[in-house]
Amino acid sequence: MEVLLIAYTPDPERVCGAAAKVCVSSKSPREIWESTPKESLLRNLGAALSRGHESVVEHAYFTFAVSGVSRALTHQLVRHRIASYSQQSQRYVKLTRPGYVTPPTVKGDAEAERLYREAVESAFKAYKRLIELGVPVEDARYVLPNAAETSLIVSVNARELLHILELRLCLHAQWEIRMLASKMLQEAVKVAPEILANAGPPCKVRGRCPENDPGCPLYAQYVRDKPEGVGDKGET
Amino acid sequence: MEVLLIAYTPDPERVCGAAAKVCVSSKSPREIWESTPKESLLRNLGAALSRGHESVVEHAYFTFAVSGVSRALTHQLVRHRIASYSQQSQRYVKLTRPGYVTPPTVKGDAEAERLYREAVESAFKAYKRLIELGVPVEDARYVLPNAAETSLIVSVNARELLHILELRLCLHAQWEIRMLASKMLQEAVKVAPEILANAGPPCKVRGRCPENDPGCPLYAQYVRDKPEGVGDKGET
Amino acid sequence: MEVLLIAYTPDPERVCGAAAKVCVSSKSPREIWESTPKESLLRNLGAALSRGHESVVEHAYFTFAVSGVSRALTHQLVRHRIASYSQQSQRYVKLTRPGYVTPPTVKGDAEAERLYREAVESAFKAYKRLIELGVPVEDARYVLPNAAETSLIVSVNARELLHILELRLCLHAQWEIRMLASKMLQEAVKVAPEILANAGPPCKVRGRCPENDPGCPLYAQYVRDKPEGVGDKGET
Amino acid sequence: MEVLLIAYTPDPERVCGAAAKVCVSSKSPREIWESTPKESLLRNLGAALSRGHESVVEHAYFTFAVSGVSRALTHQLVRHRIASYSQQSQRYVKLTRPGYVTPPTVKGDAEAERLYREAVESAFKAYKRLIELGVPVEDARYVLPNAAETSLIVSVNARELLHILELRLCLHAQWEIRMLASKMLQEAVKVAPEILANAGPPCKVRGRCPENDPGCPLYAQYVRDKPEGVGDKGET
Repeated sequence: MEVLLIAYTPDPERVCGAAAKVCVSSKSPREIWESTPKESLLRNLGAALSRGHESVVEHAYFTFAVSGVSRALTHQLVRHRIASYSQQSQRYVKLTRPGYVTPPTVKGDAEAERLYREAVESAFKAYKRLIELGVPVEDARYVLPNAAETSLIVSVNARELLHILELRLCLHAQWEIRMLASKMLQEAVKVAPEILANAGPPCKVRGRCPENDPGCPLYAQYVRDKPEGVGDKGET
Repeated sequence: MEVLLIAYTPDPERVCGAAAKVCVSSKSPREIWESTPKESLLRNLGAALSRGHESVVEHAYFTFAVSGVSRALTHQLVRHRIASYSQQSQRYVKLTRPGYVTPPTVKGDAEAERLYREAVESAFKAYKRLIELGVPVEDARYVLPNAAETSLIVSVNARELLHILELRLCLHAQWEIRMLASKMLQEAVKVAPEILANAGPPCKVRGRCPENDPGCPLYAQYVRDKPEGVGDKGET
Repeated sequence: MEVLLIAYTPDPERVCGAAAKVCVSSKSPREIWESTPKESLLRNLGAALSRGHESVVEHAYFTFAVSGVSRALTHQLVRHRIASYSQQSQRYVKLTRPGYVTPPTVKGDAEAERLYREAVESAFKAYKRLIELGVPVEDARYVLPNAAETSLIVSVNARELLHILELRLCLHAQWEIRMLASKMLQEAVKVAPEILANAGPPCKVRGRCPENDPGCPLYAQYVRDKPEGVGDKGET
Repeated sequence: MEVLLIAYTPDPERVCGAAAKVCVSSKSPREIWESTPKESLLRNLGAALSRGHESVVEHAYFTFAVSGVSRALTHQLVRHRIASYSQQSQRYVKLTRPGYVTPPTVKGDAEAERLYREAVESAFKAYKRLIELGVPVEDARYVLPNAAETSLIVSVNARELLHILELRLCLHAQWEIRMLASKMLQEAVKVAPEILANAGPPCKVRGRCPENDPGCPLYAQYVRDKPEGVGDKGET
């Protein structure tokens, strides 16, 4: 899996801070944008976020190029509706290189791994053979497995990214999309540290566990022994 | 494939007609709703639609129960972001009955069909075997094919339904999602005939072919020999 | 202010319960829809909501007819983007009856009330006079006050309605939109009691106060002396 | 009215072109992003748009700072739901400088202008006086006119911007929002000329007039004497 941040709003936190200030200031956006020191705008941003005024971070956008992920992952990912996706089409692109993803639980067991590899590779062979028999690519791909690699470009604003991270960094999330969420965060936090520094699953962000799972290692850390400050933020 | 309309806004066209009238009337919504004859509201609806004022049909909702479709289809379907989906989870549900979809192009060729059946069924066998080896259901399903059957409940308003139908009833759309679109229309048109009577691909609705394909049978019918009235409607 | 629930998904909680069950069951939606007792579906609904799986209530829709509210209110209301609005147009409708809203803080002070009434009524007079002078209705309305009455039809699904209620039932919300939220809840809870019974501001729903206002009467009730069960629900 | 483009996706058309190419190429997004010449990506972009594949331009974002516009305008603007807004609050900001907008039709008539000025200025006086009497700012503002100036920061992707421009550049659109649309286009076209070069009302873009108004000057130019190429593009 590879996740590349190929574009983002320049100086995203200054933009969001200016947006936060516009809401509560009698100054014009131009004055705010051109004459307010960045540190001051960051304080506006922090104040807005601490009161649950999350819409101000919608002005920060991130565009990720993602490859080496499975169709199992992307079918989940595209369920996040407040984002834009351009994905490699299995209708128009004939997959000549049979790339696929193998789950860690399969890798950990020699027999399972052999079985898995055979199953996936024979699916790719059937795909190739069906095309040779004249079946259109878009129909031959019905035999391809969920494991088949795909790639896409996804754009998302910081508010929705925070929401995605909250759902997908939870240890109950599916392992592959959790890995994607983790890599997205790793990239985005470099350019928007204030907005994303505290991103994480509900336990970390709100001191709560929607799964209500005391057996989870994060439960102990964030819910049972709730550290000072966790979950004190606004959250609407 | 089965498509069942399990719920919809009662008297949807009266609701949308009332919404259209509220925009341009000095009467209160209550007066409009309680005292305007339905035929009159339908005229308001028609007038709004003919001027491209499509938002008024957002007040009509349809909830479909869909089963016997492939994951190839649903991965496309859920790309329509202005709709709500509740889909059978391959993470939580162990598929014990190996249902799958076979494309018509495969069915039409004995060798292709045999190859296809073997490929898909051996994938389901590998899935079963991986689970027996202790691989979690959510990881075993990586070997399942796009062809695997799934089911879902989808809710969509009439404006977005018209948009989906425009994209998916085109003869260039993928066959399975075109079949779904056709069945959704068949169900919904019974309860919202005014809104949906003219639903169809861009050629039928607008007299244009975005694919610019003169070889398509609908091209001749709707674009070359454009019938009176086709494409005269507002379309923003 | 008048709020009328003019349409909604029939048996909304059965629909949402079926949606919840489809996600985790190997049965087809038709089997679930036709053969599962309602109480059983309600248990599925409850289980989904308690784990923060809120998307299942997107299948329940409500359409409200709202009148006698100010443009100050509607400018806020239409900021909720996951909803559909059809509002009386000040461009196309000439307001002949000068209806307007008066805030309670103004009503409570005789001098303020007189000043307010004069200001608003002279604005309506200027509006009328400008039209007589040949100014188009859509431009004459620039003199009309925020207080001017408007009416609209709004449709919203239960998930977004819960979100709107959370923001707008807070005692820090603006009084008029809080009143609207309260009336919407009053109407909707009659037909979807399971979904809406616990609707309320963040303090009631989550045991938290994004405004961090210990002076608020609800703070004492829900945050300081958090009752058993408050805020224990999933909340992503 | 002032419209400032304060942020946008760097090299937006290269990003959108790469997104277009990812859909139909067997190369990875990284290869596409790092090794494809920009002219080649622009050809992918052009091909996608000509087939009505508009989602690829969702990856280009624009953030505008807007000031000196009326609340009449912003109440319309925020109806565009696929965008992000941060607007000066009339609840939290006390308007000490009574800025307001005057429509051209009013400016063109001395008596109307005098009447308008008096009406608006006396509204601001009443606002000030109400606050002195102890009425909260958020309630005093009920007397403020639609004409009252406001400012905001708005972010929108190129697909929705094209949609907004189509609706709001029409000569039937309200004059002030048409002026805003025109200024947004003027700013954005500098940085995304390929995407926005042909932006315009439906007559210009599609060769159609949803208002069906042969009396409009653009009707003659774009609908009656439809120039070569107009309306030939895909349009779903």
